[in-house]
Amino acid sequence: MQVRFSLKAGITFSGPIGPEAKNALELAVKEANGQLFVKGVPKGVPAGEVGRISWWETEGNLLSLAIESGGYTRAHDALFRFRKHVAQALGKHHLGLREISVGEFSVTLPAGVPETAIPRIPFIQKVERKPDGVILDLAVTTQDLENRVPDRIVKLIEEKAEAISYGGKTEHWELMYESPKHERPYTGNPTEEMEKRHWIRHGSSRGQWIYGPQPIQLFRAFTSIVEEEIIRPLGFAEMIFPKLDTWDVLSRSGHAKGVYPEIYYVCTPKTRDPGFWEDVADYFKVTGEVPVGMLRDRIDGPIGALCYAQCPSFWPFVQGRTVANASLPVKVFDRSGTSHRYESGGIHGIERVDEFHRIEIVWFGTVDQTVKMAEELHRAYTRVFNELLELEWRCAKVTPWFMAQEGMVGACGCETVGTTDYEAILPYSGTWLEFQNVSVNGDKYPKGFNVKIQSGEECWSGCSGIGLERWTAAFLAQKGFDPAGWPAAVANRVGSLNEVFRFL
Amino acid sequence: MQVRFSLKAGITFSGPIGPEAKNALELAVKEANGQLFVKGVPKGVPAGEVGRISWWETEGNLLSLAIESGGYTRAHDALFRFRKHVAQALGKHHLGLREISVGEFSVTLPAGVPETAIPRIPFIQKVERKPDGVILDLAVTTQDLENRVPDRIVKLIEEKAEAISYGGKTEHWELMYESPKHERPYTGNPTEEMEKRHWIRHGSSRGQWIYGPQPIQLFRAFTSIVEEEIIRPLGFAEMIFPKLDTWDVLSRSGHAKGVYPEIYYVCTPKTRDPGFWEDVADYFKVTGEVPVGMLRDRIDGPIGALCYAQCPSFWPFVQGRTVANASLPVKVFDRSGTSHRYESGGIHGIERVDEFHRIEIVWFGTVDQTVKMAEELHRAYTRVFNELLELEWRCAKVTPWFMAQEGMVGACGCETVGTTDYEAILPYSGTWLEFQNVSVNGDKYPKGFNVKIQSGEECWSGCSGIGLERWTAAFLAQKGFDPAGWPAAVANRVGSLNEVFRFL
Repeated sequence: MQVRFSLKAGITFSGPIGPEAKNALELAVKEANGQLFVKGVPKGVPAGEVGRISWWETEGNLLSLAIESGGYTRAHDALFRFRKHVAQALGKHHLGLREISVGEFSVTLPAGVPETAIPRIPFIQKVERKPDGVILDLAVTTQDLENRVPDRIVKLIEEKAEAISYGGKTEHWELMYESPKHERPYTGNPTEEMEKRHWIRHGSSRGQWIYGPQPIQLFRAFTSIVEEEIIRPLGFAEMIFPKLDTWDVLSRSGHAKGVYPEIYYVCTPKTRDPGFWEDVADYFKVTGEVPVGMLRDRIDGPIGALCYAQCPSFWPFVQGRTVANASLPVKVFDRSGTSHRYESGGIHGIERVDEFHRIEIVWFGTVDQTVKMAEELHRAYTRVFNELLELEWRCAKVTPWFMAQEGMVGACGCETVGTTDYEAILPYSGTWLEFQNVSVNGDKYPKGFNVKIQSGEECWSGCSGIGLERWTAAFLAQKGFDPAGWPAAVANRVGSLNEVFRFL
Repeated sequence: MQVRFSLKAGITFSGPIGPEAKNALELAVKEANGQLFVKGVPKGVPAGEVGRISWWETEGNLLSLAIESGGYTRAHDALFRFRKHVAQALGKHHLGLREISVGEFSVTLPAGVPETAIPRIPFIQKVERKPDGVILDLAVTTQDLENRVPDRIVKLIEEKAEAISYGGKTEHWELMYESPKHERPYTGNPTEEMEKRHWIRHGSSRGQWIYGPQPIQLFRAFTSIVEEEIIRPLGFAEMIFPKLDTWDVLSRSGHAKGVYPEIYYVCTPKTRDPGFWEDVADYFKVTGEVPVGMLRDRIDGPIGALCYAQCPSFWPFVQGRTVANASLPVKVFDRSGTSHRYESGGIHGIERVDEFHRIEIVWFGTVDQTVKMAEELHRAYTRVFNELLELEWRCAKVTPWFMAQEGMVGACGCETVGTTDYEAILPYSGTWLEFQNVSVNGDKYPKGFNVKIQSGEECWSGCSGIGLERWTAAFLAQKGFDPAGWPAAVANRVGSLNEVFRFL
């Protein structure tokens, strides 16, 4: 997108700018426009594209100036380069640079940018449409400019314009493999059947189930298949990733760009002082009701979210570190707790829950190592689904939502970055259930968490989530509830079903 | 506590109360005072202690009346008994009972109740101290009376007065067993050593650690000992208990009486509509900061808390059900996720964390079955700590906080209800760490969740939490980091330590 930036700023010095200093200033501006701002700009870029001080004047301690630019040495970058330069130049005249204040800042976008791409974006105080462009007046401080706010606004509008042009299609789906067909001995809904048998019961929160002994026997059978056939042969080591993700983690992982409608938020008490909470406790003791309104005023945050994607909270373990070549590819996994997603309401079975249990596999290394591990995992899963679980399944390459959100795929263009979704047919509904995935995430996480590898090569990572509820939903939907009809690899591991609870 | 209740109420009928109806009313009041209110009152209770209509009059459709009582057939209970009685009596005169409104309601407590026992308790609109008692004027509706608000207020004030008289001592500690002494080959702080070795690293949230492969080898060694020596021989079956506890669960479990300063609160998005969240996402994309203030306005709840005590969320599985004798005692456990406590700030190691991993064991049945299982567990733990982990430990009987909070122990007086805490010495600090417990909780949970057993006998339950961080903290503090010095039961299970990560 062709963009122009324009700013007016004031630079305050420690004393009046006298005639000699003014001469030095004139020279400094010339040097800035002629050399300083041109540094690093590729050859062939038209002069009008590069940052330039187009006007300046002094009054007392104050230097006022205007800078214009296209996409190269953008006006605000030029301002900061000039700050250093002019501080030196006037320092020789015993004038210290005290403060920079931004008077006006505008960004001009091409005329074609759709209106809906510029909604309530912060910092934009006025939008003016002219025949040759859209002018955005920004209310920004020096700090905001140092934080590259104008660049981020331009990028955001570009993304929104792009999303509008794609008509909201953010996922590309491409079939890669289809398994052999199997008999379909069962056509019931496994959740309903499990409820009837008292294997599971709704928890007290939405999309939450309590699992009795029998489904856990299935969960553990699947876990042991994953351990014996995938995790151990491929050399993954168990770790524990935290299950509460702070905003810092979700910012670095990229989820803070769009995950808000789907997370469970976590807040902390303002204090541990029991006196502060006494009347809340009293209210409950007197009414039998928890006073939610009183609680709202007494909690801080939200400080973050319940585990959503499982792998982000691994990365602080290696954040800011350089990993030895001998350790690569790093291969770890976590199965230490729950993931939570605020799913749409209505009636769903265990195939679509707010609280679920997943074995999360993570690896990273060079680009080659990372891509190769994804392929090995794919082969291992294929064997497990075909030979051990005997499922009817398929897999497809898709562009994951977060990459779509960040425009990563467009930017990278790599064939190998992306997600493979594994889907199983649910005979009772005739629909396909995504029950598994393998993702190659490119440099997203190593970059976000500043992880380097010894060789200095690009570092990539991958992850794969094994959802125990979804494996169970797919397996029972296809195989039914008679263990005699189950593949031996599952039936043998489950053994006889443990009927702990009999109710009257 | 000797208490008196006094109320004035109006009962509205569907038409004017004529002379004949008034005669019927006179009889009804006489019957109420003479028989209805006396029903169920133990012999020997002075007449003045029992509810009594002390005054009444009619005007048009309205019957006004005053009721006084001591602790038997309390004024509000008398009112509701009379409602039914008078509705029948005047029904014969074609007058239907339309509405009851409470005019005044006061509670008189003994003069000795300390002032601080009556803080900002809801419903109390005036407190008057007289030589012969403290009079509380309550602002209550008929609904509040049906909800037994006056009784709950009296109980609450009794508890507070009792707590004041105990001077805040809520835990009784009594040594039960002390293990043999062991050599102390190591005197370091295991957390510091593990950090140095890159075995663990602080997570991004407070009191949160990320565990690398080596401590997980220890966690899994302990898990396998627990499985092989305790869970399997004693016949416990694995389940999955939810890890988000709604207020309903925490109300029934009793935690809503006082857990507020120590929990992590969970809130939900007001909507999943991405448009509602677009400006939040935009703010992040433009500034790189998550706008916590904007989020606060867009979330609902708190709907509950992150798992705190682990066993409460099991109980909805059996809530409202009657369990067959053949299933008793029910023996289950959960190890499906994290527990979270908002601990005091400052520097702590893995022995005191906000996010931790626990195997939670739960059982219930008759009183005998429940107490016997606690004893069996105690024997199994004793064997494991002495013979397999070779720890220096002790155990003590303590009154758990929630029972103290609810005055349960005083009420029950049973020797067998209570908690046994297991403590291990930490040589580096010379302090004892509580690393394990076994609790017999009496009828608290079965009652709270309305669980019955086939025989109709009283149902009791117990629970025991095995904290993997605390086992690890105790073990490493006593045994150190050289596996050659570890007991064989642990060393063999750990095998060689898995050095996945080498950093430059």
